[in-house]
Amino acid sequence: MSHLLDPAALAALFTEARSHNGWTDEPVSDDLLRQVYELTRMGPTSANCSPGRFVFVRSAEAKRKLAPALSKGNLDKTLAAPVTVIAAWDTQFHDKLPQLFPHVDARGWFTGSPAVAHETAFRNATLQAGYLILAARALGLDAGPLSGFDKALVDEAFFAGTSWTSNFLINLGHGDASKLFGRLPRLSVDEACRFD
Amino acid sequence: MSHLLDPAALAALFTEARSHNGWTDEPVSDDLLRQVYELTRMGPTSANCSPGRFVFVRSAEAKRKLAPALSKGNLDKTLAAPVTVIAAWDTQFHDKLPQLFPHVDARGWFTGSPAVAHETAFRNATLQAGYLILAARALGLDAGPLSGFDKALVDEAFFAGTSWTSNFLINLGHGDASKLFGRLPRLSVDEACRFD
Repeated sequence: MSHLLDPAALAALFTEARSHNGWTDEPVSDDLLRQVYELTRMGPTSANCSPGRFVFVRSAEAKRKLAPALSKGNLDKTLAAPVTVIAAWDTQFHDKLPQLFPHVDARGWFTGSPAVAHETAFRNATLQAGYLILAARALGLDAGPLSGFDKALVDEAFFAGTSWTSNFLINLGHGDASKLFGRLPRLSVDEACRFD
Repeated sequence: MSHLLDPAALAALFTEARSHNGWTDEPVSDDLLRQVYELTRMGPTSANCSPGRFVFVRSAEAKRKLAPALSKGNLDKTLAAPVTVIAAWDTQFHDKLPQLFPHVDARGWFTGSPAVAHETAFRNATLQAGYLILAARALGLDAGPLSGFDKALVDEAFFAGTSWTSNFLINLGHGDASKLFGRLPRLSVDEACRFD
């Protein structure tokens, strides 16, 4: 598979895309959110372990449950977003490995090694959350990811009695460009890369 | 910014893209690798912290340094790939925050909190490595990410005396479709998502 995306697609995904702080009233349908997940799930994870789980918070009641966990600077924009995704992972992700990676006993790599299971879940669920940000952009949505919230409160409010745990949040909707901050600088190739 | 990618672009990034195990002889130029990074760096990180660092391993000498760290199943395909990216992060990433997030003292959030610094670096460097996989695909390359290697050996061989540490590896090149395995299943929306 080899396909060079056109400049408009690269702009939508990377160069012109922005992390949004304000949102228009345009709604986001559950069907579109399903399409976002259908793309997200195709991205690679190690041994296809697919630990990422996603809660699409869009009802007023669910937003009320989320509010106490948000930092002050993230509260208003998150309550205003049509959808807030709780990007999470399943700490028991390895129980799905007989289904996801059926040709070897991959479950056994993790059942006796909580530290390896944690690192694997955190790494791969984060990759999947990154795929979700770009999948949302690819389907015409804007994203506003954020880490400023109380994970323990979110886990208590949304995941009590389950094996899921929160990683970070991603507001989704149609961004209000008038609420954007100025673009921040990035590291140059020379600062962040080596060619060995 | 709102732009719906066409089906060919979605296929190249997500639905038809595969993790490759075999590679054609077609070379990958340093200029193309720079373009991959230029897209990667535009993806969002928390407080623009940008902890991801990338070593493009493509010389015979650098591949020889990498070989002892690879697991048996990942050795041949990694040595055969035109480029292997060591997706890493800078454990002292916060020293760049006065440049990357100049309007507040964000560096101070991390200097006294090694656990917060580690979690932030791991999460955001992993997001950036995920952006790199999709940026490579967007520019016509195939990717083969892998976690089966000895991180301590890679850190010793490539990062001794620096503050960089390895996260995972990503083979890049033009994939040989005849070496692909069958596509593995993914979790359904009902298994991995909730609509609250």
